[in-house]
Amino acid sequence: MPVCEIISVGTELLLGEILNTNARFLSLELAALGISVLRQTTVGDNPQRLAQALKDALSRSDIVITSGGLGPTADDITKEVCCQVMGFELIVDEEILTLLEQFFASRGIKMPHSNKKQALVPLGGTVFRNKNGTAPGIACEKDAKCVILLPGPPRELNPMFSESIRPFLSKYTNGVILSHTVRTFGIGESAMAELAEDLLNSENPTVAPYAKDGEALLRVTACAQTAEQVESLCAPVLKSLLERLSPYVYGVDVNSLQQKVVELLTEKKLKVALAESCTAGYTAKRLTEIAGASKVFECGIIAYSNEIKIKLLNVSPDTLKEYGAVSEQTAIEMAKGARSAGGADIGVGITGIAGPEGDGSDMPAGLSFIALADGDTVRVEKIETGKPLDREYNRYYTASRALNMIRLYAVNF
Amino acid sequence: MPVCEIISVGTELLLGEILNTNARFLSLELAALGISVLRQTTVGDNPQRLAQALKDALSRSDIVITSGGLGPTADDITKEVCCQVMGFELIVDEEILTLLEQFFASRGIKMPHSNKKQALVPLGGTVFRNKNGTAPGIACEKDAKCVILLPGPPRELNPMFSESIRPFLSKYTNGVILSHTVRTFGIGESAMAELAEDLLNSENPTVAPYAKDGEALLRVTACAQTAEQVESLCAPVLKSLLERLSPYVYGVDVNSLQQKVVELLTEKKLKVALAESCTAGYTAKRLTEIAGASKVFECGIIAYSNEIKIKLLNVSPDTLKEYGAVSEQTAIEMAKGARSAGGADIGVGITGIAGPEGDGSDMPAGLSFIALADGDTVRVEKIETGKPLDREYNRYYTASRALNMIRLYAVNF
Repeated sequence: MPVCEIISVGTELLLGEILNTNARFLSLELAALGISVLRQTTVGDNPQRLAQALKDALSRSDIVITSGGLGPTADDITKEVCCQVMGFELIVDEEILTLLEQFFASRGIKMPHSNKKQALVPLGGTVFRNKNGTAPGIACEKDAKCVILLPGPPRELNPMFSESIRPFLSKYTNGVILSHTVRTFGIGESAMAELAEDLLNSENPTVAPYAKDGEALLRVTACAQTAEQVESLCAPVLKSLLERLSPYVYGVDVNSLQQKVVELLTEKKLKVALAESCTAGYTAKRLTEIAGASKVFECGIIAYSNEIKIKLLNVSPDTLKEYGAVSEQTAIEMAKGARSAGGADIGVGITGIAGPEGDGSDMPAGLSFIALADGDTVRVEKIETGKPLDREYNRYYTASRALNMIRLYAVNF
Repeated sequence: MPVCEIISVGTELLLGEILNTNARFLSLELAALGISVLRQTTVGDNPQRLAQALKDALSRSDIVITSGGLGPTADDITKEVCCQVMGFELIVDEEILTLLEQFFASRGIKMPHSNKKQALVPLGGTVFRNKNGTAPGIACEKDAKCVILLPGPPRELNPMFSESIRPFLSKYTNGVILSHTVRTFGIGESAMAELAEDLLNSENPTVAPYAKDGEALLRVTACAQTAEQVESLCAPVLKSLLERLSPYVYGVDVNSLQQKVVELLTEKKLKVALAESCTAGYTAKRLTEIAGASKVFECGIIAYSNEIKIKLLNVSPDTLKEYGAVSEQTAIEMAKGARSAGGADIGVGITGIAGPEGDGSDMPAGLSFIALADGDTVRVEKIETGKPLDREYNRYYTASRALNMIRLYAVNF
């Protein structure tokens, strides 16, 4: 399979003024075509540095795709630099020139002289129409190397890739690459990697662990002639991983814990109500990221103060006095209160200390209690994140633990 | 001034699985320090390719900053490769090792053997504490070159840069560089830039506009021998910007809209209660990101269904029948209901259609109504984002508008 590099051109990228979404878009598209991306490089609007980046990339890779620097202004230099590096002559493409003139005429504007340079194309190159702008895409092929120049604006680059570049690249690809992601909760990246250690060195499929938002993921990627062959390469590895990690795996190729929770609650026809103190809406916010969450979640109560816990959640003042707001007992009464307030099948109560300051007691920030109550039973979890200063993590992780408790309840329901 | 390159390490970046926000963050921060970024490079978790990328970067630049590849697993190789390229020996840092062991102990977990490698640091290098994760940051300085290794997760990298790397880099910059950020809400980036057009070309201070999370920002950066001189360069420009943008500016050098809201409510001794339907906790979650929010926010009610709106917020069934759940009238009754349920000074009611699906009516997703009620008056805003398919944006932007309504009420209180 050919290897590819992506070069993003634009000083605004080096200044951090815009986020480079093109490199990600192109990487995703190329992976789907089975073309592996060796490097992504970003350079400014500087001819020498762009020329050097192009030469470096061509020395390592078969295909180089650039984005940006095809505009009409003096600092748009990608086409000129590429032709000089590849040894192509630039000539006027009358058809493109006519299209450009029509483009401006249709907007009732006379074409600025500077736009004429956008009608220059490399003699012997391939030109791709730009339906959403003035800069055509271009491919220069020589000595078994291919450089493809794409416009910078995503609304021009993305459709051009789908309509013209993907078909153009098919002659370079033989086979497919596909990945599956195993998502776990409740185990660290390194502990997970140890359980999968012998698989981490396999060649095809490859198995790569990584951590994301306090969760541990494993990506299984295989390459073969057909999608079917890829799947049959992945299947045994996935099976083995699911066996080893079964207590922790919440899904394969699902987007998030909350997505899985909403799927399960919908499937089991269960409604949940939330009472949140330290997470203060974070759990509800994440549940409702999922379209259709309203089928399984109707009611959440954010109760920071004791008064609100008593008034809206029917928590007993004695409980608060005897055990404190951050306690197993209060979490349980909050869960029961949420359940009855929301008329839900299960209620979840979350109380803790988000940090960075403590609550005046000797309890550490990062400590929280989560209770889940259905009609008959109650379960409680105590959490200590050990990150007293990290309010965001404490809130996010506590919400994740609550979501995972709901998931496990629904799985076993 | 020194030149710098950024190397992002991670196969998931080359596969397009995640967007490279670190390169942008670092570029913005370095620009603010007056350090120009020559290149951004992304390579996978591959020792040879990372080594080559490091050598290439060091041959062109004075400073190289990497992100990613400092984790505990076998494919985390940045530190090892950097030390090999720079000729540094790795030794165990007992202090870091103790911190790691405490980190796991606090979670009641035995530290996995693989995490020990995170306590390895280059002999003669500089180590930066990671308050939000297990991988310390590292700087290797040799032969007038400096390589700085940072962890990949933005939650760890961003605070580490602000707390440790920015001060560390000061010795590489001559003079003082300071920037101020003017944050606005309710005006687009280009409209804002037009109002500031003549200032955008100034040299010292520089004025750079950018857009972030649906807000428009202006960064004013000056360089001089002393902080006082920098401030006196910035002052007139800031003054002029605040005059031109006054209806939109919510703060200078504040972190977020919610931070400003919590500051203002605290200062004015006002308590707010929330009733959220379409945002379903997003507004409360953002308010409570701010430590100390409990002083001004005690009660939030998430009411997705009509039943809950009636039961917990005392919304009249007739109102729901006559005007519908997504209406000015329902928003007003939700605001009043939240205010009395929470015993707060002001109540805010938010009802709308987050999307991507509509609610069965002819109203578009992205439509919402926000009402704010104090004892005497009520104000309502109608919002149409025009992005029916973008659930996340609709929820985030609607929450931002609610926060901005609270801000304006408090400003004028």
